[in-house]
Amino acid sequence: MTATAQPATLSQDQVEELCAFACKLADAAAEVTLDYFRQPMGVDDKDKGDGFDPVTKADQGAERVIRALIEEHYPDHGIFGEEFGVKAAEGPFEWVLDPVDGTRAFISGLPTWGTLIALRHHGEPVIGVIDQPYLKERYLGWPDGATLNGTPISTRACPSLDKATLSSTDPYLFKDAERARFDTLLQETRLVRYGLDCYAYAVMAAGHMDVVVESGLKPYDMMALIPVIRGAGGCATNWEGEAPGDCGRLVAMGDPTLLGQVLDILKD
Amino acid sequence: MTATAQPATLSQDQVEELCAFACKLADAAAEVTLDYFRQPMGVDDKDKGDGFDPVTKADQGAERVIRALIEEHYPDHGIFGEEFGVKAAEGPFEWVLDPVDGTRAFISGLPTWGTLIALRHHGEPVIGVIDQPYLKERYLGWPDGATLNGTPISTRACPSLDKATLSSTDPYLFKDAERARFDTLLQETRLVRYGLDCYAYAVMAAGHMDVVVESGLKPYDMMALIPVIRGAGGCATNWEGEAPGDCGRLVAMGDPTLLGQVLDILKD
Repeated sequence: MTATAQPATLSQDQVEELCAFACKLADAAAEVTLDYFRQPMGVDDKDKGDGFDPVTKADQGAERVIRALIEEHYPDHGIFGEEFGVKAAEGPFEWVLDPVDGTRAFISGLPTWGTLIALRHHGEPVIGVIDQPYLKERYLGWPDGATLNGTPISTRACPSLDKATLSSTDPYLFKDAERARFDTLLQETRLVRYGLDCYAYAVMAAGHMDVVVESGLKPYDMMALIPVIRGAGGCATNWEGEAPGDCGRLVAMGDPTLLGQVLDILKD
Repeated sequence: MTATAQPATLSQDQVEELCAFACKLADAAAEVTLDYFRQPMGVDDKDKGDGFDPVTKADQGAERVIRALIEEHYPDHGIFGEEFGVKAAEGPFEWVLDPVDGTRAFISGLPTWGTLIALRHHGEPVIGVIDQPYLKERYLGWPDGATLNGTPISTRACPSLDKATLSSTDPYLFKDAERARFDTLLQETRLVRYGLDCYAYAVMAAGHMDVVVESGLKPYDMMALIPVIRGAGGCATNWEGEAPGDCGRLVAMGDPTLLGQVLDILKD
């Protein structure tokens, strides 16, 4: 399988139905998360010293409503959520969920977190939603396309690496050799933005970012991003140029023609 | 003059009039900047290899309309803009302008840039606007208060430094000794966010961020921030705890009771 291959077994009708359902899940999650975003932490939370309660409540509450909807409508589909773990599938479909990706942004009042909803079919991510309900921006991707709030989007061409905008959530998360390779990439590109989590992939899909490189991702951090990037014309691979799988090392590019150059820098 | 002292010579009526005018300036700037935000760069721009044209056009275009309005309504007021320099004042008032603060965010399609409009009176920033027109968020500050879209806002209490959220636009801009002191502060706080430019101060004023530390700021990068932070109940000083002046080293805190601790870490 090449990095951009997609299972061809879903019909157009199935894709449409499942995309609509993924959006319904995002709607339900948004009602929960927005109740907690930019809300002051209660005195009780501070007294307990945890301080992270609002995002935990948002995360858990949103995952609960999403899981309930899936179990109601597609009881045979598997579920893999950040908060409540795995429900095994009785068939080829599995939903992979991160209700609040970007918890640090969330608790800092920054609108660059997102709700991630992915559908895997025979293990391959085929539908993805990156939803930012405060901005009212919903990025949806499937094997043949991607939209922002229903309007088709596409990644931009990037004529050369020295014109590229690069992003990574936290360069300090790279291990030693990874960090050195990322630093080389940094020197080759024009501009870097940090701290964006899923939102970097969203703006890439809409044509405003060129390269995102990350390491240490969990499946629920990355599965929803892949169909959005691919549907918008970009590519998403692991650092070896293969299908990302669950390895946690992701390279996403708006312009696939530059992938080889980036992989040459990142490879072991 | 202490770090938080304000000139007492403006009447309430003057403040209201000038705040309304500052908002009118932000409205005019927004019409220009939003025309360029998230627009694809033309092929010509890429061929010339500059790539930064959209933000330059937004910056210059917005400063032009702001300057024209000031010259029409307050011809004796001075103007100090990032793009077109200084027009000397014939009196105590000077507007300090940065039409697009956060150009890197702007060209990356990220909604964390802002239009900064400040009014200095006898050299002291007394009115400030941080406007984010894509998010439709306008933060306005004056000596007695601050609002977000007309609703009063206030900074939050922070019980101790180890609960604080810290931000700085780019830690690599700190010089050697500054960097070491910032790194110490980083270790004492709970969470750090980078790359936010003026938007870190905006979310601080609204109660979601605790400490912002920067170095190398120009007057037009910082003047508008100060009345917003102070009006919301926070404090803004230089790294020595004095009025920031034009030195470019700014410490802004949502909870002024922690200022001494932060200054102890940052001082030479």
